[in-house]
Amino acid sequence: MRVLIVGATGLIGKEIVRLLSTEHQVIGASRHGSDLSVDLADKASIVSMYQQLGTVDAVICAAGAAKFAPLESLTDEDFAFSLANKLMGQVNLVRCSGGHVTQGGSLTLTSGILSLHPVTGSAVVGIVNAGVEAFVRSAALELRGKARVNAVSPGWVSETLAAMGQAYSAGTPAAVVAQAYNRSLVEDITGQVIPVKKS
Amino acid sequence: MRVLIVGATGLIGKEIVRLLSTEHQVIGASRHGSDLSVDLADKASIVSMYQQLGTVDAVICAAGAAKFAPLESLTDEDFAFSLANKLMGQVNLVRCSGGHVTQGGSLTLTSGILSLHPVTGSAVVGIVNAGVEAFVRSAALELRGKARVNAVSPGWVSETLAAMGQAYSAGTPAAVVAQAYNRSLVEDITGQVIPVKKS
Ligand SMILES: NC(=O)c1ccc[n+]([C@@H]2O[C@H](COP(=O)([O-])OP(=O)(O)OC[C@H]3O[C@@H](n4cnc5c(N)ncnc54)[C@H](OP(=O)(O)O)[C@@H]3O)[C@@H](O)[C@H]2O)c1
Ligand SMILES: NC(=O)c1ccc[n+]([C@@H]2O[C@H](COP(=O)([O-])OP(=O)(O)OC[C@H]3O[C@@H](n4cnc5c(N)ncnc54)[C@H](OP(=O)(O)O)[C@@H]3O)[C@@H](O)[C@H]2O)c1
Repeated sequence: MRVLIVGATGLIGKEIVRLLSTEHQVIGASRHGSDLSVDLADKASIVSMYQQLGTVDAVICAAGAAKFAPLESLTDEDFAFSLANKLMGQVNLVRCSGGHVTQGGSLTLTSGILSLHPVTGSAVVGIVNAGVEAFVRSAALELRGKARVNAVSPGWVSETLAAMGQAYSAGTPAAVVAQAYNRSLVEDITGQVIPVKKS
Repeated sequence: MRVLIVGATGLIGKEIVRLLSTEHQVIGASRHGSDLSVDLADKASIVSMYQQLGTVDAVICAAGAAKFAPLESLTDEDFAFSLANKLMGQVNLVRCSGGHVTQGGSLTLTSGILSLHPVTGSAVVGIVNAGVEAFVRSAALELRGKARVNAVSPGWVSETLAAMGQAYSAGTPAAVVAQAYNRSLVEDITGQVIPVKKS
């Protein structure tokens, strides 16, 4: 398969690239330093990326930012930034994919556990993740027969916890998270949110 | 209790007003024809409404629009309108409530069943509803001790189905939906999404 991976240079993205490269032709995308350049927050750059890409069998997105901060310190701009980036960026990746994904191809987005299990600071991250999950359910319905659409919902990633000074063992290693994206690629599922549990 | 009801003139809002008026002092708000004027899509008008309102024991919102249309015909403007109106409008109603809701008061928003059970046309409505539900979970956590925050998630309302030429009996009458808002008001719950099942 020919597979586009948006966020290919990231913690999770790098492990997806490593896992899929053995069997598939992988094309990476991100703002800087990948095969293709794209900024999820800029719809025109998504359109331009697809034009350069041509056609793929699968699109995987492991990118998208949202602001993590206590509710009372989140600004209007923090909400707007997060909705435009991780939420609408991924929605637009699906909306603009028409004609660039083979019949029955697979689209996989990323949400995260904070949609269901909030912590202090996760108000807008939770909104964004839940929005991605609901979008996957409805897009799967409307694109049935054309493409499959799923989301991977990672819990905390071990490497991220370690970087925050917390226990690596409390999370899931990025290499294990990557396997969930492979499930979305090879299993005949659509409209699903694939949880990544602590290994 | 002194209770603000945003969307007081609507199908569901009118029934909430009817139900609560027997026991509580109800203040209605909407864009036109209520005690107070507010446009959820305009944060400044929310701030101004709270200034005129003073302090209440509870805020209930049964308002907020989102565009219902097939995914391929939804425009960028439809997404932006929906996120700004039913999602950020309700989020801002909570964000701006500080100092206007008594200690331990109750905030109740409205989502809807399309977050979990999509139909063709519900892509952005589903995003918005799921976003409201995730926000309620995180805001409840961060406002614990200050205010309770819940959402009511109605299924199709009978009167709405009838107006669409479908069977009244397939939905829940607005007067029954109103009871769910009363639960959020009087029960000691927070961070909950209260489903309204067909009666
Ligand atoms: N790490 C965790 O614990 C965790 C847990 C749950 C969910 N997640 C989610 O998983 C996804 C990836 O996380 P990660 O930890 O792997 O992130 P990361 O290490 O920061 O990597 C992010 C990747 O996305 C690219 N990127 C960032 N902003 C972009 C934009 N606007 N347009 C296009 N590409 C962009 C980055 O490259 P450039 O900067 O060059 O663009 C990089 O390749 C995120 O959505 C995150 O919310 C992470
Ligand atoms: N009816 C259903 O089957 C159903 C099912 C699930 C969920 N819901 C949700 O329940 C809520 C109420 O639905 P409904 O059927 O009762 O709607 P409705 O009959 O159209 O009433 C809407 C109410 O909200 C007010 N409103 C509309 N836009 C507003 C804005 N921008 N700012 C402030 N107030 C505004 C309206 O008054 P003005 O026009 O004067 O502002 C009116 O009072 C909506 O969020 C809807 O999505 C409805």
